[in-house]
Amino acid sequence: MAHEAPKRAAAARAIEEIENGMVVGLGSGSTAEIAVELLAARGLRIVGVPTSERTARLARRLGIALASLDEHPQLDVVIDGADQVERGTLTLVKGLGGALLREKIVASAARRMIVMVDDSKLVDRLGGRTPLPVEIVAFGWRSTLGRLAGRGLRPTLRGGAERPFVTDGGNLIADCAIAAIDDPAGLERELSGIVGVVETGLFIGLASRVIVGGARNVEVIER
Amino acid sequence: MAHEAPKRAAAARAIEEIENGMVVGLGSGSTAEIAVELLAARGLRIVGVPTSERTARLARRLGIALASLDEHPQLDVVIDGADQVERGTLTLVKGLGGALLREKIVASAARRMIVMVDDSKLVDRLGGRTPLPVEIVAFGWRSTLGRLAGRGLRPTLRGGAERPFVTDGGNLIADCAIAAIDDPAGLERELSGIVGVVETGLFIGLASRVIVGGARNVEVIER
Repeated sequence: MAHEAPKRAAAARAIEEIENGMVVGLGSGSTAEIAVELLAARGLRIVGVPTSERTARLARRLGIALASLDEHPQLDVVIDGADQVERGTLTLVKGLGGALLREKIVASAARRMIVMVDDSKLVDRLGGRTPLPVEIVAFGWRSTLGRLAGRGLRPTLRGGAERPFVTDGGNLIADCAIAAIDDPAGLERELSGIVGVVETGLFIGLASRVIVGGARNVEVIER
Repeated sequence: MAHEAPKRAAAARAIEEIENGMVVGLGSGSTAEIAVELLAARGLRIVGVPTSERTARLARRLGIALASLDEHPQLDVVIDGADQVERGTLTLVKGLGGALLREKIVASAARRMIVMVDDSKLVDRLGGRTPLPVEIVAFGWRSTLGRLAGRGLRPTLRGGAERPFVTDGGNLIADCAIAAIDDPAGLERELSGIVGVVETGLFIGLASRVIVGGARNVEVIER
């Protein structure tokens, strides 16, 4: 697994902030899964709110008590990974794993969001090599892709038209190539207004702390 | 059925604009269903793109050829009803029937949208007695309702928590009481930006013509 040791270092540092009795949003993706494993190994009595079916299965197998967001509409903290973190603002790009919608809903319901990444994810400006995932409604997806393209984005349907990737919510993902995201808030507003778009992979103002695992050390960035 | 004759008058006038060979979006709700019946009775050779499973079943039964939006990403016209029409702007409130998401996607893919209503639907300002339906993700709906309430709206989950109304896309509907919608575009932007909101019932800049059936006459309003 790529960047295994830095991811593990970040995850280990993140779960130090979890205490007995907390309601904890459990993110999705490789780093979040490491954190879930470490959390179970520590044997804390927490209630986990999973952001994907996959994380739910893992947590259940490890004996972590689970609840739904509707049982706990407000969480103490969510721990999750990210595909890109903008150093200056802690704005994130998420969704390469396909769970962005539930991750964003859970993050929006948490008092704090702790993000764990390896140092390859930290960038000065979002965009570039990492596409922006946008969750779209399956019904009429071609029309929605056309509207995204009409805004100058270069969307491709994840998985392709024959066997599209389907999210836990039954939606599809349009991966949008963007050279550089100069104005995340403006882009978020524009994309949210496009009919057929459910949610974007931009997480603005949600991360309160980012823990960056490197080869030799762990960096903690606060907002 | 309430307002049956005015609805029928509006529907009859609307389908005069449909011609052989057109790809026609077929709306949902009582007035749209009357239009589908009249369309079938006229025996035109059209291809219909339905906006709900219910309309699809009706059209199929009446022998209208159907296709999906992905087969015809651009439509010639869509005919649909509305819950409210603002006279000055032709901005609509839709979604009391529960099909707003597909209706909005189909309307956004059509060159023209012809709206058919009885004259009780025509208002000087949107809001008031008619709530604004907002389609929301089922996952974490309580949190999303909390965010809507935090913006000063008064949302109620359609159907209630025990047996919520589920849309064709698997989402839920929050009916939001709003005294008067002074700035539809601003409200649309605000609601679209709320995490968990899939789409709102505000249709801005989509209706090109509204046909209003009354007790004695039919009024056609153009944009």
